[in-house]
Amino acid sequence: MQKHDQDYIRRKNKAAVFQMIRSSAPISRADIARTTKMSPTTISRIVQELKDQGFVKEMELQTASTPGRRAILLELDQTSVLTVGIELDRSKFKIGIVDFEGRMVFVGNVDRELVGTPDETLAQIGRELQAIIEQQKIDAKKIIGIGIGIPGLVDTKSGEVILSAQLGWSRINVVEKLKKITGYDVAIDNELKVKALAEHSYGAAKGSSRTALIGFGSGVGSALVINGEIYRGDTNSAGEIGHTIVDPNGVLCACGKIGCLQTYIAESSLISEANKVRPISSLDELFEERRQGQLWAATIIDRAIAFIGITIANVISMYNPSTVIVSGNLVEKYEEIRSIIERDELQQYVWEPLRDSYQLVLSNLGSNGVVIGASLLAQDTFLSIEI
Amino acid sequence: MQKHDQDYIRRKNKAAVFQMIRSSAPISRADIARTTKMSPTTISRIVQELKDQGFVKEMELQTASTPGRRAILLELDQTSVLTVGIELDRSKFKIGIVDFEGRMVFVGNVDRELVGTPDETLAQIGRELQAIIEQQKIDAKKIIGIGIGIPGLVDTKSGEVILSAQLGWSRINVVEKLKKITGYDVAIDNELKVKALAEHSYGAAKGSSRTALIGFGSGVGSALVINGEIYRGDTNSAGEIGHTIVDPNGVLCACGKIGCLQTYIAESSLISEANKVRPISSLDELFEERRQGQLWAATIIDRAIAFIGITIANVISMYNPSTVIVSGNLVEKYEEIRSIIERDELQQYVWEPLRDSYQLVLSNLGSNGVVIGASLLAQDTFLSIEI
Repeated sequence: MQKHDQDYIRRKNKAAVFQMIRSSAPISRADIARTTKMSPTTISRIVQELKDQGFVKEMELQTASTPGRRAILLELDQTSVLTVGIELDRSKFKIGIVDFEGRMVFVGNVDRELVGTPDETLAQIGRELQAIIEQQKIDAKKIIGIGIGIPGLVDTKSGEVILSAQLGWSRINVVEKLKKITGYDVAIDNELKVKALAEHSYGAAKGSSRTALIGFGSGVGSALVINGEIYRGDTNSAGEIGHTIVDPNGVLCACGKIGCLQTYIAESSLISEANKVRPISSLDELFEERRQGQLWAATIIDRAIAFIGITIANVISMYNPSTVIVSGNLVEKYEEIRSIIERDELQQYVWEPLRDSYQLVLSNLGSNGVVIGASLLAQDTFLSIEI
Repeated sequence: MQKHDQDYIRRKNKAAVFQMIRSSAPISRADIARTTKMSPTTISRIVQELKDQGFVKEMELQTASTPGRRAILLELDQTSVLTVGIELDRSKFKIGIVDFEGRMVFVGNVDRELVGTPDETLAQIGRELQAIIEQQKIDAKKIIGIGIGIPGLVDTKSGEVILSAQLGWSRINVVEKLKKITGYDVAIDNELKVKALAEHSYGAAKGSSRTALIGFGSGVGSALVINGEIYRGDTNSAGEIGHTIVDPNGVLCACGKIGCLQTYIAESSLISEANKVRPISSLDELFEERRQGQLWAATIIDRAIAFIGITIANVISMYNPSTVIVSGNLVEKYEEIRSIIERDELQQYVWEPLRDSYQLVLSNLGSNGVVIGASLLAQDTFLSIEI
């Protein structure tokens, strides 16, 4: 076999061993050999390289079954690599420093200077990140890159935000700008896509082979993760369920079409419906009206619940996922809706043959999901375990 | 490097070379080496093995640029392997004998004995296949297996038809039964999934990285092929768009839900709507009424066209495919609808940021798509190029 064939297989094998330790730690060399079907000699060589690079460390375990004998297990050295995860929203952003195993070392919320241009917002992010690194005494040398999650359409390759209604941005190259400001490598994606990745890796869908995440918040969106990989589609727009048509005789959407799902269930739509009856400025107020027995508020919320059911059903029909994660303010914050999801009471909307095909769960990383997912994206993009 | 690591890489390399010849033939050894980054020695060894097995043959080409010099190119020996593709429908079935490169050696239509049980239908298929092999003098030794495409939900692993409303079958293990009857290995899948595979491999979406196929016929369904692989979802039900909800205040569907896409656009729905006005027994009659200037027929057909637009738009939002293939009786058979698709006139239903993201085409294998796809499924499942 020629030299470059050997290098290729070496790299593949090393990546496989690394992924196995990452997903199944603590794990023994013998178990890795058994699962990957590689030879013990190969495993030992690769593990030694990963130890030399600082990514993997050994832990010794007293085995219960054979007293006196110690098993040596491998795990990631979670302090060896750090990434920065950023969630950018209309009125605030969130910065997290995340370790090798998806644990938050630090997380902070910052109000966005709303009057600012994209350049000013990104400069503000740069200043806040620098302050966090200094104040929290983070070892900056360990940071291998930044990941950022954005509401809207994102071109992950060029690094550009194509269109974000929430931020009011279009055609802004965030990756280029933020790299220039911070000096770190930057990766970007849609917020729901990285959230799905985080829930799949560390949250509610750990171990699921096909995870669909639906977000009900300022907009409606979905994301699909297949075997640990985000399904992007051709222009990274897969899962944009907010503009699927669910009522051809319905309401005109700001996008110019009639009957978009968005128009029935986005936060702003619910509030604008409520304002036809009474001046209401937040979902909190709308839910409070309902608790006070206001039937008009119940009517609006009941219709939203029906559309939550329809959204879940349509995602199940299209993606046939093993796990459906429901997330976002509308479902996480209000007990009335959360409990319906927890009891999976919306099955009437799901096509009968699929009713037993999925597991429905609430997101469990909650409001940290985007930050953790964005940092994971940075890890996947910038971590190099090459020979 | 240990022996079994080497065997693993040998198998992987051989599969890669085989796939390259299959997709890019005629191709030279040098080009394969360049693309796969394997060494010329490795390529030569693998090609020799594939030649010895009878899968690959050489063709000599006079090169235009260097007179007197001959290039030796590789291609599949298309006569070395045959598969049987079967499409089973309500009132008839179709049997095709397909060569190594997806070309139909023979195809025949047979009326299904409708009164028959599943066992009787499968026995009839067995008899017809045997007759075809004898009459067409097919070399039975070259047949490596049968693929069958079924309308409805199929468990590809167990070989069972879970539910087929069109056939009236539920929980029938077609693979087991047909294998027993014919003696050949049998693979099964949903008809639209294999059709998408065929269009992706040999038809309208050749070279597309993400192909969505939509079928408008006795039902509505869709399928997604990602990099040559069918996206199945967790229980092989992905793409069952017929029961997505597109009108919550709409019509009750036979499945028990309200507003399923199916109820607006399936053949039987259109015919039953037409019957509210005049006794009509086929789509042909309905379209004829419209051509005669009957406005009620125009109303029904126009609504169907709107729902075709909605279906295409929703598939694009969910899957973000590079190519959308539209197929099925309703669009292929009627010029009124075919021309609308060909001119891509339904863009008003597609979300604006996605309007330039896809290519919309009519299926080009037409009524042979399922047979070719099913035979391709058999090839993928049963062809062994192992060392």
